[in-house]
Amino acid sequence: MLGLGLIGGSLLRAAVAAGREAWGYNRSVSAVEQARADGFDASADLAEVLGKAQARRALVVVGVPMPAVDGVLAAVAEFAPGCPLTDVVSVKAPVSAAVAAHGLAARYVGGHPMAGTAESGWTASDANLFRDAVWVVATDNGVDPAIWSAVARLALACGSVVVPAESVEHDGAVARISHLPHLLAEALALSGAAGGDLALGLAAGSFRDGTRVAGSAPALVRAMCEANADALLAALDETLTVLSTARTALADFASTAELVEAGYDARLRYENVERWEITGIEPGSPDWVERLRDAGRRGGVLRAL
Amino acid sequence: MLGLGLIGGSLLRAAVAAGREAWGYNRSVSAVEQARADGFDASADLAEVLGKAQARRALVVVGVPMPAVDGVLAAVAEFAPGCPLTDVVSVKAPVSAAVAAHGLAARYVGGHPMAGTAESGWTASDANLFRDAVWVVATDNGVDPAIWSAVARLALACGSVVVPAESVEHDGAVARISHLPHLLAEALALSGAAGGDLALGLAAGSFRDGTRVAGSAPALVRAMCEANADALLAALDETLTVLSTARTALADFASTAELVEAGYDARLRYENVERWEITGIEPGSPDWVERLRDAGRRGGVLRAL
Repeated sequence: MLGLGLIGGSLLRAAVAAGREAWGYNRSVSAVEQARADGFDASADLAEVLGKAQARRALVVVGVPMPAVDGVLAAVAEFAPGCPLTDVVSVKAPVSAAVAAHGLAARYVGGHPMAGTAESGWTASDANLFRDAVWVVATDNGVDPAIWSAVARLALACGSVVVPAESVEHDGAVARISHLPHLLAEALALSGAAGGDLALGLAAGSFRDGTRVAGSAPALVRAMCEANADALLAALDETLTVLSTARTALADFASTAELVEAGYDARLRYENVERWEITGIEPGSPDWVERLRDAGRRGGVLRAL
Repeated sequence: MLGLGLIGGSLLRAAVAAGREAWGYNRSVSAVEQARADGFDASADLAEVLGKAQARRALVVVGVPMPAVDGVLAAVAEFAPGCPLTDVVSVKAPVSAAVAAHGLAARYVGGHPMAGTAESGWTASDANLFRDAVWVVATDNGVDPAIWSAVARLALACGSVVVPAESVEHDGAVARISHLPHLLAEALALSGAAGGDLALGLAAGSFRDGTRVAGSAPALVRAMCEANADALLAALDETLTVLSTARTALADFASTAELVEAGYDARLRYENVERWEITGIEPGSPDWVERLRDAGRRGGVLRAL
């Protein structure tokens, strides 16, 4: 486990709790000392940690922030070139590109556990963080079925359900449901504040809920949104078109009918979305990548493998 | 009380509970019968109800949906031209214009209690609906101080605090904090649904909260937004500019810094807004209208008069 923050630390805890042998690296010595004090095998020596992984052909998990990914991958290529590789970074296509740039593509299957809290760091880590969470396992063309299965089994061992999705589809989806909501919340907060204390004093539930995530730490919001800039740009452009069309209807006919009725239907669809279990698709069987992706697109999840 | 729905019915109950003599009109006989069964003086005969008001120079309160306002005002002009007049409709400048068109401007002071529930109709009405709510009392140029005071005292008697605001400022403020949030929620719901069951299945708190009010009945959202079309258009245009600027920064520099940092500051300002009590401004005293409006703009409320 490379990186022992909230996600990486929780994954080290969860893997050990699931009966696996696992050890971790963190750049800062203080997190390493905390992890050791809690009884875990942790080190600030990246070469040593990766050497141990290479000797055992262990699954290497990259769990550092996006700006640190490149440096960590260079070390993986140098010290653990024979290990299967995954990651828990919140964006998939950029990580996949960095992996390819280091010549590690053949042994890599990306992952993204959709879990987190407002806190961060080893001290916030929790072996149960991934229980009942959704863990996206990247299902790209040419992926190695054995490594794909190893990553999916890790997710299942941590208590998550697995959603198979192509990296670019994952990034497009999280842009819509995680990153765009932040930009709209920031814009709504600005509109309210531009109305001064009169407007803010009249604000009730719709404004409070619509701006809640604008209260998140700007550095975290920026890191999340900017790492997924291409997909977020596409989602934002689509929404600008929707709002501009609504603007025209409001100006020309004083009508909000089209937007309001379509938005209501969309929210109902969200409220009624149901997960169903994917069964009978064996990794490595004919067309398994396309079949898993198709199932994931239709709301399917793996609960066992 | 003209109209015995959620707001009008609650106001009839609250006024009687506060020791006032009050009676009501409703177009539908069933609500009238329910109100009578609950012990209230109610009638479906608008001329009779207004005749009684005219005889006693009672304060007439218009509490019907915006599309019905014009017809009710015509009856007020015919049967109760000597009464002071207010309303509890959620938009102020359009009601004020309709009042002026019926020659009733001199006796009118608009009002808007910021209260409501998801339910509607007499059966949902509650004498405590306005307790600790914010009640905007329109503070426009040339307003009659005695009528202004009568409307403010009614709001205070119902347990609300009074925010003095000019009609157009009220409409601009509620466009920002109540109507724009609905349009953004609808647009966000559409973006999520366009990502299919994959995106909707990955959605978590930011999407759930950001789309919550898209689940409101479309007819109610439309009525609210479209009655305030001019002010909503201005707020929407401002937000389209903010989002377009953010789009350019994202496309050109993969940066969200400006929007995210400003939005965070705006949300903090909202979280920290504090109501303070306006004292020492007597309606009718020199510059009282400007002084009250200025206090309302700065977050002041009246708790007594």
